[in-house]
Amino acid sequence: MTETKRPALRPFHTATAAFAAGSDTPRAFLERCIEAIDADQPKFLAFVNLDLTDARNAADAATQRWNDGAPLSPIDGMPVGIKDIIETANMPTEMGSPLFAGYRSGRDSASVAALREAGAVVVGKTVTTEFAATVARETRNPWDPARTPGGSSSGSACAVGDGMLPAALGTQVIGSILRPAAYCGAFGYKPSVGGINRGGSVDYHSQSCQGVIAATLEDAWFTAREITARAGGDPGYPGIRGPRTVPAARQPTRLALLQTAGWAVATSDAKDQLQTVLGRFRRAGIAIDDRTNDAGIAQAEDAVANALALSTTINTWDFRWPLNVFARNMDHAKLSPVMQSRLVLAERMTLEEYQAAIEERDRVRATFARLAERFDAAVTLTAPDAAPLGLESTGNPIFVVPGSLLGVPALTLPIMRTQDLPLGLQLLGFNGRDADLFSAARGLP
Amino acid sequence: MTETKRPALRPFHTATAAFAAGSDTPRAFLERCIEAIDADQPKFLAFVNLDLTDARNAADAATQRWNDGAPLSPIDGMPVGIKDIIETANMPTEMGSPLFAGYRSGRDSASVAALREAGAVVVGKTVTTEFAATVARETRNPWDPARTPGGSSSGSACAVGDGMLPAALGTQVIGSILRPAAYCGAFGYKPSVGGINRGGSVDYHSQSCQGVIAATLEDAWFTAREITARAGGDPGYPGIRGPRTVPAARQPTRLALLQTAGWAVATSDAKDQLQTVLGRFRRAGIAIDDRTNDAGIAQAEDAVANALALSTTINTWDFRWPLNVFARNMDHAKLSPVMQSRLVLAERMTLEEYQAAIEERDRVRATFARLAERFDAAVTLTAPDAAPLGLESTGNPIFVVPGSLLGVPALTLPIMRTQDLPLGLQLLGFNGRDADLFSAARGLP
Repeated sequence: MTETKRPALRPFHTATAAFAAGSDTPRAFLERCIEAIDADQPKFLAFVNLDLTDARNAADAATQRWNDGAPLSPIDGMPVGIKDIIETANMPTEMGSPLFAGYRSGRDSASVAALREAGAVVVGKTVTTEFAATVARETRNPWDPARTPGGSSSGSACAVGDGMLPAALGTQVIGSILRPAAYCGAFGYKPSVGGINRGGSVDYHSQSCQGVIAATLEDAWFTAREITARAGGDPGYPGIRGPRTVPAARQPTRLALLQTAGWAVATSDAKDQLQTVLGRFRRAGIAIDDRTNDAGIAQAEDAVANALALSTTINTWDFRWPLNVFARNMDHAKLSPVMQSRLVLAERMTLEEYQAAIEERDRVRATFARLAERFDAAVTLTAPDAAPLGLESTGNPIFVVPGSLLGVPALTLPIMRTQDLPLGLQLLGFNGRDADLFSAARGLP
Repeated sequence: MTETKRPALRPFHTATAAFAAGSDTPRAFLERCIEAIDADQPKFLAFVNLDLTDARNAADAATQRWNDGAPLSPIDGMPVGIKDIIETANMPTEMGSPLFAGYRSGRDSASVAALREAGAVVVGKTVTTEFAATVARETRNPWDPARTPGGSSSGSACAVGDGMLPAALGTQVIGSILRPAAYCGAFGYKPSVGGINRGGSVDYHSQSCQGVIAATLEDAWFTAREITARAGGDPGYPGIRGPRTVPAARQPTRLALLQTAGWAVATSDAKDQLQTVLGRFRRAGIAIDDRTNDAGIAQAEDAVANALALSTTINTWDFRWPLNVFARNMDHAKLSPVMQSRLVLAERMTLEEYQAAIEERDRVRATFARLAERFDAAVTLTAPDAAPLGLESTGNPIFVVPGSLLGVPALTLPIMRTQDLPLGLQLLGFNGRDADLFSAARGLP
């Protein structure tokens, strides 16, 4: 009988001590990643393009720097994947769209330029749904190829969840980092809105955010923080604040359990798994309140009750351009029916509807922000269930869309299982306090 | 002896009654613009590219709509110029840089797409300094070809000031709309920051803004407002608020005279001209306070005293990317020495310096915003003098950089003269209240 290998994450940060000691090298680390890619890419289709020659050259340079005792950063030599809506000088940026098949911008995005400055090794472009929206592409879930990897950062989550890479860039405007990370058993980090400079990414949504899917919290933090140190946040934003080291573990005192719109569709086993974890937290002395004993939580839940509809309204207007010029100046027929109908909706919208929607979003954000007075973070499921069967849908984003609307930092931790598949625990922090969220996550018992 | 023709502005809005009546047509209006372009473009070099075939087709379609009594908007048929950092599907976008000679993005920017939806006739791309920054290009001042037209929206200001076009798009991050508009004798309008969607413009600065240089206030308002109605503001911003009609004239009650850093270098004649105008305002019953009798004005002046240095710091970080990938992934040698040294400065900056700078900008904005309690607008010169002789420098932005830093709506009105050349009166409004600023400007005696 054939043995089924369980996917295993491939941490990078824990390997760097061996780089410093000379018992391992970034090049050897990369070769182990390439072995995994050679073995698993044909099955799971995480990548749309690879540039292994460039990656090996970069890994050799990193090896030399570690040998010299002079790494550029904690992620010097880290193999990374880049979601294919983010530009790379040495590879096409195809955006999951036939409109951009083979398209080369000839330049790196702000984040990719920063990764290279920090010594990271860009291995390949990871599959995205069409324009990081809903229409799924070919990637499969490394835990079960009959299941979706989630989306839109499908390839990034697959590559990290499978152990092909320790980290990969994603983007999230609805649920596109946390959902696939949870489905593929990886850590996912969506920063505070504006936290990572999106220059050179086909991403014009006001609540979208670039972030990281990684093998560990440490890898996620270092990757995001080193990018921000060099590329900043979106123009006008302060970028991710916090130490260049990993924020120290600090057990939370009080967490807010959110039972948002997803609660009604979560499986009973998923809720049971969550309760088991929360029980462990409580036994360790963490207070966990919910809407039954904290009016602020009830208000926050009410405020985000329409998070998906409100986010969709905002996203529709935000994507009016460039969708209209994709259709008008390029080839309308190469847009999916979903995108074509989204453009119709966008062109029916008025500026005044958009103004009302972003004002409503501001109110929702203010309501949620008041939880910071009593809670270290909010906690809930990342998805209603494990990754669903089938590749047509990338799964239900209902649990993660509130974090996108709120613009707060959000993490998913792959610390639960259901049906022998990964189930994510979601933590939501408060705007600008990404480091505190990492401290809380690392301090969980 | 040869007769020197004084440049004359070419209003559009006042012509539309004749379009409706059938005694004039958008096509005939365009042909008058083309006559002026044929005569003056060789002397003043406002355009880097023209597409008159496309323009004539668009003007014919507009003519048909006016004949049918069904114009798409108040700017249906309006010939416009597009600053060459803003993308157009039918013409290259060369950005004033040899790096992008002949570059075609194949799509319209958000603003250009909106202009076409509103029926405007895109005539050509107007000369910009390199990446809308300091290095001047070939354009000359239509009042005196030995003088700079100002920059960076050099071609837009020249084309409008000369009467080749009724309106053209510009962008301003330091002084790039108001300064050239004033030098060329046109109206200039920089909206509240975020007021016009900059998608598809090579413009990543957090305080940059797309705006309009026009023959009249009405033409400026209609152009900006019709773009915003279709393309919105920058993602997450409400866009320009106000009526689709022109904001009604309303004589201001009280104006704040600003004597900012430019005051020390303004010529005595420029200051005299300003005093003459202010005397007329006072006689009409408008109260005009200054730092000697209003502590809030003194505080606001102190707050913007370092506007140029602070703006430069912010712009330097904001342009780190894409300047670094222009240099690294493209051809470093095709960047001007000014741009090369700006990149060096950007790469020496830290995220923490940027964070401090944007926090300081927030404080400056809050200080200025308090003037709204007592004043309809602030008033000052747009430039220390008429356009200076020579084409190397685009002139001193010292009077307009405060408005850029503040992110407030700003207008320049070509209602003064010095040395028989245009001298602009600048009005600064309050964030989000662009329509009130137009009401005040239209209500001036």
